[in-house]
Amino acid sequence: MHILVTNDDGVQAPGLLALAQELRKVGKVTVFAPDHNWSASGHVKTMDRPLRARDVLLADGTTALATDGAPSDSVALALLGVVKEKIDLVVSGINPHENIGHDVTYSGTVTAAMEAVIGGVPGIAISLNSPEEFKGVLDYDTAAIVARKVVQKVMTEGLPEGVLLNVNVPYLKEFELKGFMITRQGLRLYRDELDARKDPRGKPYYWIGGQFPLGVLEEGTDYGAIKAGYVSLTPLQLDLTACEAMEGMKKWKWG
Amino acid sequence: MHILVTNDDGVQAPGLLALAQELRKVGKVTVFAPDHNWSASGHVKTMDRPLRARDVLLADGTTALATDGAPSDSVALALLGVVKEKIDLVVSGINPHENIGHDVTYSGTVTAAMEAVIGGVPGIAISLNSPEEFKGVLDYDTAAIVARKVVQKVMTEGLPEGVLLNVNVPYLKEFELKGFMITRQGLRLYRDELDARKDPRGKPYYWIGGQFPLGVLEEGTDYGAIKAGYVSLTPLQLDLTACEAMEGMKKWKWG
Repeated sequence: MHILVTNDDGVQAPGLLALAQELRKVGKVTVFAPDHNWSASGHVKTMDRPLRARDVLLADGTTALATDGAPSDSVALALLGVVKEKIDLVVSGINPHENIGHDVTYSGTVTAAMEAVIGGVPGIAISLNSPEEFKGVLDYDTAAIVARKVVQKVMTEGLPEGVLLNVNVPYLKEFELKGFMITRQGLRLYRDELDARKDPRGKPYYWIGGQFPLGVLEEGTDYGAIKAGYVSLTPLQLDLTACEAMEGMKKWKWG
Repeated sequence: MHILVTNDDGVQAPGLLALAQELRKVGKVTVFAPDHNWSASGHVKTMDRPLRARDVLLADGTTALATDGAPSDSVALALLGVVKEKIDLVVSGINPHENIGHDVTYSGTVTAAMEAVIGGVPGIAISLNSPEEFKGVLDYDTAAIVARKVVQKVMTEGLPEGVLLNVNVPYLKEFELKGFMITRQGLRLYRDELDARKDPRGKPYYWIGGQFPLGVLEEGTDYGAIKAGYVSLTPLQLDLTACEAMEGMKKWKWG
């Protein structure tokens, strides 16, 4: 079992190191990730410029590949042959914040797993529901163990074709977890606000500011599960067709 | 009716100008688009740097706003208040190539319409299935007229909450079109290949190269419709839950 580990926080992020170390217990791990943070940068295929893939050293002395491309680019490059050995599984994370609801199309963590599925390899995204107010170094131990267990389960059970797995882990000790819950994607409430400023020359510029987004607490959803102390496993697909909307639209008269 | 027009090819692209000019016939149009090409750059929310919004002049002498952010950033900035007047509808395009199948999460054209829906405003993406081998200036006239008709239909019929419309137009004269077809998202076959090169200092770099992607010809899909001469209208949702996969996964034993 050869596992490609990537993320969207950059190759030197502690969440990636924790994930790679834990997954080395169940397979061969190759780390290939962006050389800087790509949070909320979406599903990218870089085609208008070439990309680098450089060897770098991680904090535990192991080697990794770093690219100036996006998380999904690192997966594409790896699957297209920059990584020579066949890849059986792509695991992306551990993201320091949850990726729930509408986050999934923005998230570099999740879109890296999408890219794996498009490339014909199972993809898993792992994110940690750390407290918003938390300062300091996060504890990734529980999320790493969860990631290993999910990887082992996917190795034995498989994933349906075209499906990626979006995993969110509560910020708890392993013994405090209530279990694993298969969930549907919930709803996100963004609280973005415009923060308009003037530069030193008096010209306007804008931050997309505001507060951290909320989740809508609903049973059976990703957010509902993590708030109840469960690991949330949401199978996601790349077919976005709004099937229910089709029927009404078919009645439209075009004259 | 106040329509925000954006795109992912950059504010000076001819497809945007054709769209803006045609939509001025049915409402007030504000153009706010990226200052450079963002094709295949995904659903972005730029949070680690501030963004500009500068006045620029289009080729027909009208004014527009240009941002150094992504297509979805331009929609977010507009809805958050950089554009003062209330926006009723966001239309993104006209993209010179079709956006079908798995393209939708990569596409700046489509993700701009996603951002509209997340912001509570109907979103429509318009793309043209121009011939791959075509050189020269594309004819956007038919696609612009189609865009206007779709906008008028959405104005009278509305779109279900959370649903965006992905419109693909065959490269035909208006009278040659067979009509409008409500479709589901089809399948894309990417044909990416690694193009590994050496820089003048002998260091490797990589292009994601290969051939233009194929569509899978299936009745009822986006690609099936445009290849049969119909305008394809695919309603898309932001809930990616793979509902069928959930049942099988619920039987997983976690020990």
